[in-house]
Amino acid sequence: MTTAMSLPETIAFLERDFPQMNHDGPAFHLESVGPLSARMRLDHHERFLRPGGTISGPAMMALADYALYAAILANIGPVGLAVTTNLSFNFLRKPGPTGLVAEATLLKLGKRLAVGEARLFATGSDDLVCHATGTYSIPPER
Amino acid sequence: MTTAMSLPETIAFLERDFPQMNHDGPAFHLESVGPLSARMRLDHHERFLRPGGTISGPAMMALADYALYAAILANIGPVGLAVTTNLSFNFLRKPGPTGLVAEATLLKLGKRLAVGEARLFATGSDDLVCHATGTYSIPPER
Amino acid sequence: MTTAMSLPETIAFLERDFPQMNHDGPAFHLESVGPLSARMRLDHHERFLRPGGTISGPAMMALADYALYAAILANIGPVGLAVTTNLSFNFLRKPGPTGLVAEATLLKLGKRLAVGEARLFATGSDDLVCHATGTYSIPPER
Amino acid sequence: MTTAMSLPETIAFLERDFPQMNHDGPAFHLESVGPLSARMRLDHHERFLRPGGTISGPAMMALADYALYAAILANIGPVGLAVTTNLSFNFLRKPGPTGLVAEATLLKLGKRLAVGEARLFATGSDDLVCHATGTYSIPPER
Repeated sequence: MTTAMSLPETIAFLERDFPQMNHDGPAFHLESVGPLSARMRLDHHERFLRPGGTISGPAMMALADYALYAAILANIGPVGLAVTTNLSFNFLRKPGPTGLVAEATLLKLGKRLAVGEARLFATGSDDLVCHATGTYSIPPER
Repeated sequence: MTTAMSLPETIAFLERDFPQMNHDGPAFHLESVGPLSARMRLDHHERFLRPGGTISGPAMMALADYALYAAILANIGPVGLAVTTNLSFNFLRKPGPTGLVAEATLLKLGKRLAVGEARLFATGSDDLVCHATGTYSIPPER
Repeated sequence: MTTAMSLPETIAFLERDFPQMNHDGPAFHLESVGPLSARMRLDHHERFLRPGGTISGPAMMALADYALYAAILANIGPVGLAVTTNLSFNFLRKPGPTGLVAEATLLKLGKRLAVGEARLFATGSDDLVCHATGTYSIPPER
Repeated sequence: MTTAMSLPETIAFLERDFPQMNHDGPAFHLESVGPLSARMRLDHHERFLRPGGTISGPAMMALADYALYAAILANIGPVGLAVTTNLSFNFLRKPGPTGLVAEATLLKLGKRLAVGEARLFATGSDDLVCHATGTYSIPPER
């Protein structure tokens, strides 16, 4: 079982589609794509930190959304832009001043809607720092 | 009925607590605080845009979170840092390339938990672009 | 501005569509429908209570879902069955052993998706006991 | 690694705490509890059906909530009643007219908050029909 787009193809598409993702220098890195899944890494960078050295909520939310989007894109191909309709986050533990990894898994990939979850871990740790679910509307094929 | 902190006091606290909010230049502006409420504006800025000129999801999520946080802060005072435990977003319409305004309202302000909703509008429009709800854990008083 | 179905038409449709709603005797009552809105009442009944006399979470969740569904149905007409894709609840205060009223408002009524919120109050009270948001997928017209 | 309460102890506690769970005859059955987990089954029963033979949303929501509650109870013991503060559901596929099984896993079990997810499957199937996340407030020890 393979994906509709390879890892390099998905990265190229994302870089074109989300240039602001790495507006201040590269930070979000798609590491792998697979059947109904993707893995994305967020570098440790001062601009994502809050006082106390913990990574900001918005940086975690962006990472989860991008990882889910990448999983959809890799699996349906560049047929049209999926639109995020719902995102829901449970923040579980404060990550330290490290990078983060998001493991995105699609729970459903229908013709009109895709639903997935993303689990965010601090780099090199098994502690879940954030759990996210997202729903994406897939445009009709033209 | 007044708030525990005035608008200038809340702004000063936020600027100290969230310096990364305006890391690339001022963008998030707290406009008002009131009983169980706050209003925050996000400037139009290229770094929040996606192709097509629409404002990115992460920028909207950050705005909603900051506005809810400001409403809590203004209403409980600087007694301790509330921690976001849950955020949930419904993205309703694509905003154009304009600024955004978030109207945050607290639905519950308990001793341990605060729950609120934020409604995001494009500047100068009545069209709701995003509806958010958030839950915040309030630390025990020391 | 009127609705696609009147109150009696919407009630008749719901009774056919959700017979299990009132499986153990009438309990859920649609009180009004309007542009992008509906109001539904849940009777006080022993089978919805938890120890301590508070109304059970599942009864509140059912009420919110039915009220949102009724708002959609009244506004789009009986063109097809909307399917609940996401429901999210914040439980704010324990209601006492009374009936409940749900005020449902649609935030978006698109061709493919409807999104709404429901506010649940104890009968005769202004205290919000639960806030819900729901997303519904609207089938393509045949 | 064991749980604070055994399976029979947890069942006895639930039956006392949620008598309305099985108000119309036994339907919800706790099958197992483990470290940070629980598994609950919902019998196939006419009163949970919608036209077309699919299981109603409220029955699925109740099952997810009970399963998460059971996981918390088994793991913290009968020290106090956890209160549901947030529940969020993604409905993925329509289950047929069968029973359901919920696999609940706690993502965090803190002193004040527990967060978990529940995955609902049709009996004898690997198809996920619903994914739920829940947050529970744990009362201070007396």
